[in-house]
This record gives sequence, C-alpha cells and structure tokens, in this order.
Amino acid sequence: MTLDSVQHTSAAPARRAAPPSPAAEDAASLERLRTLLDRRRRWTALESPFYSDPAIFAHDIAGIFDRHWFFAASVAEIPEPGDFVTIDVGSRSIILIRDDDGGVNALRNVCRHRGARVLTEPSGSVGNLVCAYHSWTYGRDGSLIHAAAAGADFDPGCFGLRKVHSMTVAGLIFLCLAPEPPADFAAVAEIFAPFVEPHDIPRTKVAFQQEIVEEGNWKLVMENNRECYHCDGHPELACSYFTTWGLEEHEVPEHQIDTWHRSVLADHELRERCERYGIPWQVYDAPDSREAGIRMGRDALDGDGESFSATGRRLSEKLLGDLPDFRLGDGSLHLQPNSWFHLLADHVITFAAFPMSENRTLVRTTWLVADDAVDGVDYRAEDLTHVWRQTNIQDAGFVGLTQRGVTDPGYVPGPYTPTEHQVEAFVNWYTMRMQEYIR
Amino acid sequence: MTLDSVQHTSAAPARRAAPPSPAAEDAASLERLRTLLDRRRRWTALESPFYSDPAIFAHDIAGIFDRHWFFAASVAEIPEPGDFVTIDVGSRSIILIRDDDGGVNALRNVCRHRGARVLTEPSGSVGNLVCAYHSWTYGRDGSLIHAAAAGADFDPGCFGLRKVHSMTVAGLIFLCLAPEPPADFAAVAEIFAPFVEPHDIPRTKVAFQQEIVEEGNWKLVMENNRECYHCDGHPELACSYFTTWGLEEHEVPEHQIDTWHRSVLADHELRERCERYGIPWQVYDAPDSREAGIRMGRDALDGDGESFSATGRRLSEKLLGDLPDFRLGDGSLHLQPNSWFHLLADHVITFAAFPMSENRTLVRTTWLVADDAVDGVDYRAEDLTHVWRQTNIQDAGFVGLTQRGVTDPGYVPGPYTPTEHQVEAFVNWYTMRMQEYIR
Amino acid sequence: MTLDSVQHTSAAPARRAAPPSPAAEDAASLERLRTLLDRRRRWTALESPFYSDPAIFAHDIAGIFDRHWFFAASVAEIPEPGDFVTIDVGSRSIILIRDDDGGVNALRNVCRHRGARVLTEPSGSVGNLVCAYHSWTYGRDGSLIHAAAAGADFDPGCFGLRKVHSMTVAGLIFLCLAPEPPADFAAVAEIFAPFVEPHDIPRTKVAFQQEIVEEGNWKLVMENNRECYHCDGHPELACSYFTTWGLEEHEVPEHQIDTWHRSVLADHELRERCERYGIPWQVYDAPDSREAGIRMGRDALDGDGESFSATGRRLSEKLLGDLPDFRLGDGSLHLQPNSWFHLLADHVITFAAFPMSENRTLVRTTWLVADDAVDGVDYRAEDLTHVWRQTNIQDAGFVGLTQRGVTDPGYVPGPYTPTEHQVEAFVNWYTMRMQEYIR
Repeated sequence: MTLDSVQHTSAAPARRAAPPSPAAEDAASLERLRTLLDRRRRWTALESPFYSDPAIFAHDIAGIFDRHWFFAASVAEIPEPGDFVTIDVGSRSIILIRDDDGGVNALRNVCRHRGARVLTEPSGSVGNLVCAYHSWTYGRDGSLIHAAAAGADFDPGCFGLRKVHSMTVAGLIFLCLAPEPPADFAAVAEIFAPFVEPHDIPRTKVAFQQEIVEEGNWKLVMENNRECYHCDGHPELACSYFTTWGLEEHEVPEHQIDTWHRSVLADHELRERCERYGIPWQVYDAPDSREAGIRMGRDALDGDGESFSATGRRLSEKLLGDLPDFRLGDGSLHLQPNSWFHLLADHVITFAAFPMSENRTLVRTTWLVADDAVDGVDYRAEDLTHVWRQTNIQDAGFVGLTQRGVTDPGYVPGPYTPTEHQVEAFVNWYTMRMQEYIR
Repeated sequence: MTLDSVQHTSAAPARRAAPPSPAAEDAASLERLRTLLDRRRRWTALESPFYSDPAIFAHDIAGIFDRHWFFAASVAEIPEPGDFVTIDVGSRSIILIRDDDGGVNALRNVCRHRGARVLTEPSGSVGNLVCAYHSWTYGRDGSLIHAAAAGADFDPGCFGLRKVHSMTVAGLIFLCLAPEPPADFAAVAEIFAPFVEPHDIPRTKVAFQQEIVEEGNWKLVMENNRECYHCDGHPELACSYFTTWGLEEHEVPEHQIDTWHRSVLADHELRERCERYGIPWQVYDAPDSREAGIRMGRDALDGDGESFSATGRRLSEKLLGDLPDFRLGDGSLHLQPNSWFHLLADHVITFAAFPMSENRTLVRTTWLVADDAVDGVDYRAEDLTHVWRQTNIQDAGFVGLTQRGVTDPGYVPGPYTPTEHQVEAFVNWYTMRMQEYIR
Repeated sequence: MTLDSVQHTSAAPARRAAPPSPAAEDAASLERLRTLLDRRRRWTALESPFYSDPAIFAHDIAGIFDRHWFFAASVAEIPEPGDFVTIDVGSRSIILIRDDDGGVNALRNVCRHRGARVLTEPSGSVGNLVCAYHSWTYGRDGSLIHAAAAGADFDPGCFGLRKVHSMTVAGLIFLCLAPEPPADFAAVAEIFAPFVEPHDIPRTKVAFQQEIVEEGNWKLVMENNRECYHCDGHPELACSYFTTWGLEEHEVPEHQIDTWHRSVLADHELRERCERYGIPWQVYDAPDSREAGIRMGRDALDGDGESFSATGRRLSEKLLGDLPDFRLGDGSLHLQPNSWFHLLADHVITFAAFPMSENRTLVRTTWLVADDAVDGVDYRAEDLTHVWRQTNIQDAGFVGLTQRGVTDPGYVPGPYTPTEHQVEAFVNWYTMRMQEYIR
C-alpha cells in the first residue's frame, strides 16, 4: 500500500476569521435539521427536506464534504508531472496536480490576490499555475513564485495557494477539506488497499470518462447505487451482473431463481479460484459501523465471468497489473460518502458523485485499462463502456423520477425492503455523521 | 346533478408527522403576510410581495390550494377506464384516473416505497399504475397490488397510493387536498350543476387543449380574467363578445356606445329565448360572499349570437346534449380560486390556472365539442379555437407585463375602477381565505 | 455647465406605507452585513458574502442605488422630443424621456393602475406613454391624461407616473431614487462639468452601443475598472493606452520600463498642449474622500496620441465641439458608484454598470461622435469601437473568473497591491456608504 504523506494546509488560513455564512448562522435551519434527524426511523426513507431544502444541502456540504474524506480521482487521470484535474463540490473547486516527483498536490483553486479561479478547465497540463487576471504565478506545490509590483513589505511566503489534505491509496486519490481530518480513514485504507492493489491502478490509463449531471440530490444518487432491487431496469447490465445481488435465498422472486442458482455456483468457483491465486475476495462490510464507511467484496459475473459484456467475456485483452487470470469476477468497493468502484481483471471503473446543489449531482465515471492496451487493438472504448454508460443513464432517470416525487408534499417516506440493506446503511451512516455535525 | 362519492384518504398519512417546512416554520414570513393582509384596502390592488415573495407563494399554496376545492379537469379528458391526467400544483402532482365503473379516482402521484413519481406523462392510458423504479404495482384505485421481496411482515394494505378528495359536478372534476374539505362547495355545486348540465359534458370530447406557462403569479392570471376593461386588447374576441361586459351604462366610453346598445337588446332577446326553452340564464353572483366563491350568468353574443367566431356564427354544427338552439349565448361560470368556463350551444371551454411558482402559472384551456362531432366535417379545430387561443396569448402578455411592474419597487398599488368589481371580489375572496389561514 | 432643475416626486408616494420587504426586515442579514463591514480591513479585498449573498445584494441596492446619484445615459441617446431609454437597476425600471422643451423627465416605469410595465423596449420614441393593459395614458411629464371609466370621484392628478430625481451635467444624465438626494453630488458636478463640456456631448450622436451581461457582482465590475494591473490582458488597448497607469516609478516591471518613459514624456507634452488651449487636464482625486466619489484626469495616449486605435491615430475625422486639436489624450472620469468615461478629441465613450442580481451585472457602453460625422465617411463604427469592444469582453472574462473564485469557500480575501489604489478607494467608498446605510 502506498499512502501519500498528508499535506498540511499553510498557516495563512488560520489567520482568517470564518466568513459569516447564511447557512451556518441560520439557527432555524439547524433546528429543522435537528428535528428531522431525531425523528428519522431506521429502515425508512428520509423525509422530503433532506432532498429539497437548500439550507439542508448547505449543511450536508458542511457536515459531510467539509469534514470527511471523499474520493476525487485516480492517479491514472494525472499520469505526468503538471497534469491536473479540478474537482468541484458545491461551489468549492480543488486542483489535483501531479508534482515532479510523482506525488499529488491538492490545492484550493482560488487565487490568493483577488480570488479569481486559477484553472478553469476540468483537466489539462501546466507548467506553473498562472492566474489569468493579474498573472500571479504559483508552483505546482502552490507556492507563490511571482506577483508583479506587489510592494516592498509583501511576503510571497504567506500567499501560496491553500493546501488541502489528500491521500493516495493504491492509486485512488482522496481529499479531506477539514483542517484536521478524521483518523478512521487511514485505518480503512489499510483494509481496502490490498483489495485494490492487484489491479495496479498506477499502471492503468484512462480509456474513457463520462460525466452526467443527474437531476437529483446527491443522497438519492448514492441510495440508488446501493441496491440492485431496481436492476430489472438495467437490461444491459443484467447480462453479466447477477441481479440477485443483495437478496437472501428466501426473498428471490420466481423469475430470478435460475439466476440465483447460477450465482451461487459461480461465486463458489470464484472464491476457490481467488484462494488459489491469493487474490482477496472476502467481504468486509462496515458501511455504517465505521466512521469511514466501507463495503467491499468480490462477486462472480454471469456467462464467461470475466467482464461487463453481453456474454461476460473480457472487454480488454490486457490483464491489469500482474493478474493471473481474466475470470476474477467483480471486485466491488463502496466508500461513503460519494464513491463506488468495480475492479475487474481487464479494467477498473471508478464512480464519484459530486453534489452541485440540493437537486443536482455530477456523476463522473472513469474506465481504466492497462496502460499498454491499445484502443482498437486490445479493446474498443465503445464496447468497453457500453454497459455502464447505459446503466448510468438509466440510473440518472431513476434519480430524476425520485427527486420529483420526494419533493412533492404528497410524499410519505416509505419502508426499505430487506434487500435494500446497503441503502439503509448509507442513510444511517449519513444520519450519524450529521448528528455529530450538529452536536 | 351527479356528485361522485367523496373518496377519503387512507389511514396511512394520519400516522405521519408533518414534515418541517421552511415556509410553515418561518415566523417572519407569516408576520409579513399578516401585516400585508391587515392593511389591504378594498378596491386597491395588492402590494408587491403578494406577487413576488416565494414565502408568500408557499403560503398561498398552503392557504388556498391545500385547503379549498379547485377545478382540475373534465371527464371528457379521461373518457375510458384507465385513462388518466396528471395535475400539477406547485410541486404537488395528482393522478386523475377513470375507474372501471366510470368513476374517477384521485391519487397522489408518489410511490409509497421510495417516493418516485409514478406517472410522468401529462395524460395517457394505463392498466395498473407501475412505478418505473422498483416495479411496485398499484391498481386504478391506488391499492398496492405487488411489491417484490418486501419482507414477511410487510402489509400491502398500508401502502396504497394516497387518495385525494375529488368531486365530479356535471362532468367537471374538482379536487381538494385538505384532510377535511370545506363544506360550502357541495352547496355551491348544487347551484351551478343545473347551469352546466344542459351542455352535457359527459357526452363531449376534447377537440383541442392548449397549455401556456404565463410569466406571472397565479393571482394576476385570475385578476386578468375577472374583467373586460382590457378587452380592447382582444380584437378577435371583440367580434363576438360584448366588450362592454362589466360596465354600467353611465360608464360606457363613447367608442363603445353602439356596442352597449346592441348588447342590451341581445341580452333581452337571449333571456326570452332561454325562458322559452327552460335554459338557466340568471346571474348568481357570490364571488366573495361565499367560501366557495362563484359567479355565473348567461350573456348574449354579438352578430349571429351563437359562438366565438368573427361573425358570431356557430363553430361546430353539432349541438351539445339535447340543446334546442344554437343561439344560447355564452354561459359564463367563474369559480374561485382557479377556473372559468364558457358554455355555448356548440362547444364548452374550460380554463384552469395552476400555480407553478411565485412568478409562473400554467393555464390549461380545453375545448369540448359533442362526442359525435367530426373534425373537418362538423367543426375545424383550428377555427373552433382561434379566438381564445389568440385571447389567451394576449392575456399572457398582459400578465407578464404586470408581473414585471408589480415586482418593481416603484410600484404603488392603484385603484380598481368600478368595472373591475369582479377583480375586487377575487382579491377580497383571496384576502378573506388567507386571513382564515393565518388565524 | 447646464444643470437641469431637479424634478420632485409627486405627493402620492408619501401616502404609501413602505411595503414589507424580506430584505429590509431580515434582521439576520443586516447583522451579517454589519459584522462584515466592521471587520473589513483597508487594502484587503472584500469577503465572499459581499459578492454572493442575495440578501447583501438587496442591501447594496437599498444602500447605494436607492440613496445615491448614479449615471444613467447621455442626452445623445434621446436627442428628440419623445425619445426615451429605460434604465433597469435590479427590479427597478426608470423611463428617461426627452420633453418638448428639450428637458429630460425621469419616471418610474410602472402604471399607476394595476402596475403593468409601461414601456418594454430599451429605447424608442413615443408621443404619450400609453399602458398596453388598460390604455391609461400619460404625458411625457408623467401626468395622467386619460383613464377610461375611472369613476366620478377619481382624481387623475393623483395618479401620474412617479417622478425620479434627475440631473443633467454637460450632457450626462444622472438619477437619484432617494426622496431627498444627497447634496454633495451637485458640488461635484460643478467640478467635473468643465472637464466634460469641451467635448460637447449635446452635439454628439450615438455611433454604437454595446451591452454585456457580465457574470459577476456589480462591485467586481467596478473594481476591475479601477486598475490597470491586469492590462497585460488587454492587448488591443495596450497599443494606445499606457498600461503603466497607476504605477509609481519604482514599481514599474522591467518589461514596461520603455512604456513608462514614453508615458512620462507624452504626459508632459499633453499638459503643455492643454495649457496652451485652455483644456482642463488636472487630476481631481476624491474617489472615497467625498460622498459623491470622483476621480478625473487627462492622460496622454501612446503613438499618435489621438485616440484608441492601434497606432494612436484618430478614429473619427470630426473633432468634438470646438476642440482645437486631435492630440488631447484621454480625459478620464470615474464616478462612484457605477460609471466611467473616456473623453477624447474625436469621440467620447460612456460606461455604466447596472446591477441585475448578486452575480450578474449589465454593462452598457456607448460611443459618441460629432453629430455631423458620417459613418463610412468620417468614421467607421467597427474601427471606432474595436479596442473597447475587445477590452470589455476581456474584462467580462476577468469578472466571471473572479465571481467563481470569490464564491468558493476556499477564498481568502487577498491584499491589494499599491497600484490598485483606486480599487481600494472604490471599496472604501462602498464600505463607508454602507456603514451609513446600516447606522
């Protein structure tokens, strides 16, 4: 496992008084939130204001995204020194830039002079970071290199771009905007790093990236991801993915009984194969019992059992890292609050949900293949991405439908069925974190 | 008169605590509303915040549309079992669906599981109501028929779609979202049913429907409808409609004196004709003196006196119901808070205003002709609808102009002229209902 | 100097109670504003809420644009009787109309009957002002001439369009929405009138007008205008404009040293030439030391020194007024809160910033040439406007970048450099006015 050293914020922000924020000062909205959290019942959907009230959205950002680690990108998105991506969460923008020594710097994307956005593209490559307004120039580590005519008593050392905590785990980059990040994530990283490492993300490249702005609150996006009860709505996915995921034997509907039996057999074979190769497959299930909520496990795929194609056959001819076999099923990793991952022998897919407003969420999906795989030869990007592009669009539809309904005063929070246990776990994790926030 | 039996909401909602709503809890906005209502002067336009403040809009919905009966649609829009329309008021959506026995069910358009919108089309026809998300399946009466893998102790009887009160009066369907609807409407329905019944709406069909999103508060839409002082702005309408409507003899401007004299004569003849046939024509005027505000009366038309054409001649060759004559003028029905109707011998037009936000209103206009009339033979839809399509667009312009002005801090509420007495009545009715709401 | 007599508002508004405004009654937002103003440090950018909080935007309008004189238009935009422009500030609209006697009337663009917008075009020419809704008809002085059927006890004298204070100074028209305008502006007008008069705006015509909706708060638009520290971003402007504007000799960056020396020499020559002709050139610098903040001065241009072309050569062959020479450089006038002007021998450019919302501002730029200059003969409008059209678009980009950054919670207000002294002056002027407002 490779953990980047945690980068500490510069001293400058400490001198700053917190700006008076309408949300933070709005005692009425905090009181509303407290009431709603207190009366939340387990195994019941959240009430309407959690999805519709702009003040509660502001509290979500403050209570979740400003306090906890969240997934931002993988190192494959910024392979070379100077490569960057910008990550937006609400009105926050953070630069992730690859340093000369291969490390990753995370910086607030705001000029320290008059506040202009420094980088406006979602990704690219730069030498230094130059603000377009008055040409203040920063190094890739955020230090201020040049500011013209800035006066005799100006100390450039006080005006570097503000740093953000980042941690890279097996090629996955996480951010934390809190001054002092919570500790549990590092321990959880020790758990999932060995699960991800065999897929060797540092030796992958981006085959394709899809961005969808879903017309729903970020929690609806996450809740939708956490169950397969709706998988009848994913016909392409259902070819290779066992849609009985999450069901107990006695709950399996009649039309899925054959699927269920195939999946039991396939899972059995997969585990034997993994044991043989020393590939981790065990479920680790702590989606709400840890502060850094996690669920991971390796599930067999249907058909050829290799990848997300119509027949289950591989979608790239190059194995990732030093993997010994294509038939390794779907390594599935869920991390609260905003990400999920599919780790296969031939490719990896990362999914990140970034809240935009109380009713809009950006979902960024990235397909990674071996860095020496050639499009058109070893894989075809269109085929590689087909199933999950379709699935994502279908999911966006479900999220939009739900946003419209839960903001209707006629909405009554309904019960989760047993198979929606990971939805309950996400909502319970969220509720506990928000209880801590308002305490 | 046919009154549907009132359908009561299921027990489920009663178990639900009211969700904390920003508007309802916002004591400051209630206090603003109280101050504004208290100082409203008769015969003077409302102050700016009534048209521009989102919090007061939320109170309008809570105080008017969540408490009183309003017009939704006519039975001609859902002629067959399984036919439905969805009615949106603010963020509420209600399904009106024709049952197998010809009755009308009114249901909240929100799945009882995780809150997805069930029906997304404005109209159509279905067997059962199936939520697209997890396939929960409801009958046309809202009862939950199927929910897969829902667990052993799940009681489907508790999770039917929530019912809404509906009442069908002479083919016009009204809704009330209140748990206990106010009583006056049923008494008023007894008054206007005989006025509408001769036009036999259950034996009509929809010839055309127009939807306009007007860029103004719903009250401006209603105020605009309640006077003809602006009818110089309706050149097409003025061919058959006496634009002296609402004027007293001594108020008639010189350029309308001829019109006035023609209208007096035509009204006299119309009343004699109606008396002969036993067709109701008497004015019933209680737009603000009753809780269920109403104004109805039958006015002559100009020219041939039959319909809204350039010459006053009929626009459909088929008489409605068993009407004896085309020369029956314009049966005009105004109902607070959101509707008006023109009832002619050859067609009926229904108008419904549905508030969308403080500055937008959906106006849905529906032209009904005899159900055996054939487009292109008995009527031409384009000709039938020409005058009121034009008139509606002109009205939308007036509403938009007014919205822009009344939200200007330079706006001072002005005086209504005597001919705007029905505007005053609407505003007075609104003010009294809102006084009751905040009490 | 020509000062129009100040026009007083009619008695009617005095009878009106102030409408309860959410902003004005929102004690929490006033308290936030007070805290922010109190801790504002000199030579440091404003904190985020000044640019992003809708409630503080409402206070800006109330504290600045509803209380102080601001620039609206020049007389060249309404040359003939009946010519009008409408000026929008937030949701306010004001009509400026040329009277028969050549005076200018300023009127609230809201009908006194039911509040409809009276004029909807940004400019045009009318006889009387006729409301499209019910045809209430006003004279060019706002008096109500006709209202049909208005009733026996209706007094038209009470229902004229509300008047707004206006003052025309050397052809520039200023408005004040306050009941009692502050006094300092008339004294300041005595100072800048002699500076503007030689360019004889009443004998100019509009060659071109550009409107840009900039995606930023109005204060960012003004701050951007008040410095040339960013002028490396204006390559077209830099051909004729000395981009060393605002720098002290010891601050000049190496790449601008040649420019600096040229500018010193050119300024010296310009002043001698102005002295010879009796053209005012002296700096008057009171951008924050007077209530009616002002900065004016005449700066040499590069190259031929005549106008804003690539070579500095004139852009119109007709001298303005009775000016004796084309080489008179750039008469620069800054007025708080919303305007700046470039006065050249061959043309004048007026710039006005009108706030639309907390994050959008309309910038209207108008090029004036001698009224007998002929497009295609004496000037080419495309050439005349090229440099500042480009410069404005570049500035809009800078404002947009800054709006995005200052609304990011990662923003920390940075220090102004010495060359940004006019930015500091603007912000200090704003802060003092707002301190007075909340007192």
